[in-house]
This record gives sequence, structure tokens and C-alpha cells, in this order.
Amino acid sequence: MCELLGMSANTPTDLCFSFTGLTQRGGNTGPHKDGWGVAFYEGKGVRLFHDPQPSCSSPIAELVQSYPIKSKTAICHIRQANVGEICLANTHPFVRERWGRYWVFAHNGQIANFSRQPGPCEPVGDTDSENIFCDLMNRIHHTLPRDAMPEQLAAVLVELAEEYAAQGVFNCLLSNGQWLFTYCSTKLASITRRAPFGPAQLKDADVTVDFEAETTPNDVVSIIATEPLTSDEAWDVYQPGEWKLWECGEVIASGKRQR
Amino acid sequence: MCELLGMSANTPTDLCFSFTGLTQRGGNTGPHKDGWGVAFYEGKGVRLFHDPQPSCSSPIAELVQSYPIKSKTAICHIRQANVGEICLANTHPFVRERWGRYWVFAHNGQIANFSRQPGPCEPVGDTDSENIFCDLMNRIHHTLPRDAMPEQLAAVLVELAEEYAAQGVFNCLLSNGQWLFTYCSTKLASITRRAPFGPAQLKDADVTVDFEAETTPNDVVSIIATEPLTSDEAWDVYQPGEWKLWECGEVIASGKRQR
Repeated sequence: MCELLGMSANTPTDLCFSFTGLTQRGGNTGPHKDGWGVAFYEGKGVRLFHDPQPSCSSPIAELVQSYPIKSKTAICHIRQANVGEICLANTHPFVRERWGRYWVFAHNGQIANFSRQPGPCEPVGDTDSENIFCDLMNRIHHTLPRDAMPEQLAAVLVELAEEYAAQGVFNCLLSNGQWLFTYCSTKLASITRRAPFGPAQLKDADVTVDFEAETTPNDVVSIIATEPLTSDEAWDVYQPGEWKLWECGEVIASGKRQR
Repeated sequence: MCELLGMSANTPTDLCFSFTGLTQRGGNTGPHKDGWGVAFYEGKGVRLFHDPQPSCSSPIAELVQSYPIKSKTAICHIRQANVGEICLANTHPFVRERWGRYWVFAHNGQIANFSRQPGPCEPVGDTDSENIFCDLMNRIHHTLPRDAMPEQLAAVLVELAEEYAAQGVFNCLLSNGQWLFTYCSTKLASITRRAPFGPAQLKDADVTVDFEAETTPNDVVSIIATEPLTSDEAWDVYQPGEWKLWECGEVIASGKRQR
């Protein structure tokens, strides 16, 4: 399995604090030592860092922890390999361009013997995750108009997510830089931080931050992660089958499978 | 204008020495201060670093200079903006997936009012360079079979390159991780280093390397750059209209426009 970390904010915000906590789980406080990656949107552009080394000892991860890259939407993943060898091509998040935007995807879970519908988008590596992402990209390309509104987009993404979740475990983060779609098949949690900001303590490292000193009163910053990253805040735990579409730090659409 | 740097090697090799020279031209010894980027292939995967900051003062460039990332094929670019604002989405090299491989492209030059043929591949930013790359990707998708051999591939790439060069300035580096295609419209040079290796001195920084200490007798490493990066080696200067297809450090096909 793997761990996911996403951020949605209304102002460019760095991910250093949460990333520091997550990377400890990549070989130190957690077993997810088979590579890590992160995507930071900056406007329509995206900054990518991928490394098949354990995040807890990666010089590139150290840079990302200490150099505040500011973004309104970010997606991060640390990997514990099940399907596909440990190599760069199998390291999440995966990226494809569609309709003039970069789409970024990270997955926690496993779908055995997943069969992808044919289409122009093909996997480069050999993980089930990238295969699913390509299936998703090919199918939205056929199903959605390029300027789909969030409601229409969410309806299609939820339908696909439920289809994938029915075949295995499918927790995911997906973004095109405008919004962040999150689907919980088994495990996902979120927290929204807004004024009045307080301090927070990481679970996985002896690091405390005082968000008040780092923010303005109008900032809204939401963090979505496989497991809560702090020990002294109340995280919202997703229910299995629950999804949320985030934009600028707020949930703009959400729902839950009725079964 | 911009500067290009490419590497083709028969064994995974770091680019630290050449990259250190090139990055000085990004705001220090040269005016190319409007961002930089580099792509390192590792198997079928690709590691990307992009930064709209000047390379001579970028903490990320500093990491890439000092952390030896080993690759058989790499493409690097430093930008002096002409078309398109200075932002991440406009920072080369550009990447698209096609036929299960990442294709990476960097361009030096300018084609005013370039008109792209429609197709699934669309630019995210607003440079002429990315627009040309998308045109190229869409046209090879229609023209080439997915398993095209180097000769067939080169024929199509050269035809496209000559068409682009006829409309403006088009020096380029393009790779899918197996080969590196290089086309000179106005300015490009290369050097192939093999045993017996000697020392080399950068033009743009007070840095010398002794390649013998860093290589084995079987290594073949070729560097392709807009302008020679060292002051004490004999570089081959491309003629306008000349192209070379590199693989594992060697030229496997080459030619020159007959006009």
C-alpha cells in the first residue's frame, strides 16, 4: 500500500510541514520506502519531483521539505510497492496533458488484473495505478466536454471511481490544477485550516508549526491524507465510498455511495 | 533566445559538470535568466526539474549541480523569454506521453505566428516552442507506426524539422528515452568523450573535471549544446540544416539539408 497527501488552498501555500511528516513514513515511521513523488501546480504549470529512493533519506525530499514551494494545489505520494518493480517509471504521481492542462493522479490501493479500455493514453510503467489513470483519462476524453463544469465532471469521476473501487481498493487524488478530486475506497482523512489559526504537532516527527505566524486571516488551506498527519487537531475521516471535490481549500461538491 | 544542453551516453552518467557550466549562463555569464528545466531519463521513467527562477541562483539548480543523477539520456534548457511570459508552464523541456513512452522536447529559436495542426496534444503554456512540440507529436502520431525503426523515425523528424526551420529558427533536442534527435537550424555543437579520457575546463565557471577519474574505459558520453561548454576541448560545430540521431553516446544516423 501507499500513502497519499493532497493540498487545496485559496492562496499559494507551501507543503513543507505536511510533507515533512509524510516523508518520515517513507522508510522511518512507516514502511513506504519504495519511492515518492510530488506535483505542485503553479498556475497551469506543474513542478514535479520523483524519486525511487526512500523519502526519509532522499536529498531531493530534503530540498522539498526545506524549500517552500508555494502552490494552491499539490499531490504527493509515498510508495510501498505491490504491483510493479521499484523504479522511476512506477513512481506516482502520474501526469498526462488533456485539453491544454496537466492532469495529475496518485493512487493508494490495488486492483488485481485491471483491464484498461484502449485509447491514446498508455502507461509507461507497469503499475495497476498508472493503468487505471490511463483508463480514466481515455474515458473522460470520450465522455466529457473540455469545458465541463464541476458538477458534470464530478458525476463522471464518481461513476468511474465507484467502478474501480468495486474491483479492488481505490483511494485517489486527481487534479487538473483547477480542482482536486478525492475518492475514498477504504481510507482518507482531511482537515481544513482557517482563521483563527493555531499550532499543530506532527505525529511522525518532533516538529510543531504555528500556522498563525505563517498565514493571513483570509487563508483557507485543506490537507487530505491517507492518515491524519498531526496529533493535536481534529481530522475529518472519509467514509468508504465518500468523495469530495475541492477548490481553493473548500469542498465544492461531495457525496457518498448509497449501498 | 535560449540555450540547449543534451546528453547521450552508453552508461548512466551524471550531468553535474556540464549543468554547472550551463546554469552560469542563466543570469550570470549569460542572459538566459527566465527559467530553466532538465529531464533525466532513468529506464522508461523521467525525472523532471523545472524552475522559472534564474538557474544561477536557483536552490533546485544547486541540488541538480551537486547531486549526481545518473542517466543515459538527458535534455536541459535555460530560457531567455521572447514569446510567452516567464512562468512555470512556459519552462522547457516539455513532456508528453506517446506509445507508452515519455517524449521530451526543448527548443532554441523562434517561429512567429506558428500555426499548429489540430490533434489531441495541446499546449498548456503559451510559447511557440510548446505549440511546435504539440504539432510534432500530433503529426508523428498520424505518420509513424509505434514501433518505427530509427531510419524511418529520423526521416519523419527531419522532414518536420526542416518545415519548422523554414518558418523561423528551430534548434531542437527531442527524445523518447531510447534515442536523442538533434536538429541545428542556426547553432548547435557536440563533443563525444571516450577513452583515453582527459581533463576539461568549463568556460563559464572556474571548474575543472578529470573525466578519467569518473569513468570506465568503455564509457562513451556525448554532450550536445548550443555553444561549447569547455575551453580546452575540440567541439564539433553543426552546420545549419544538419541533424544527428544519437543513441548510447554514438551518432546512429545523420544528415544535412541540401540547399
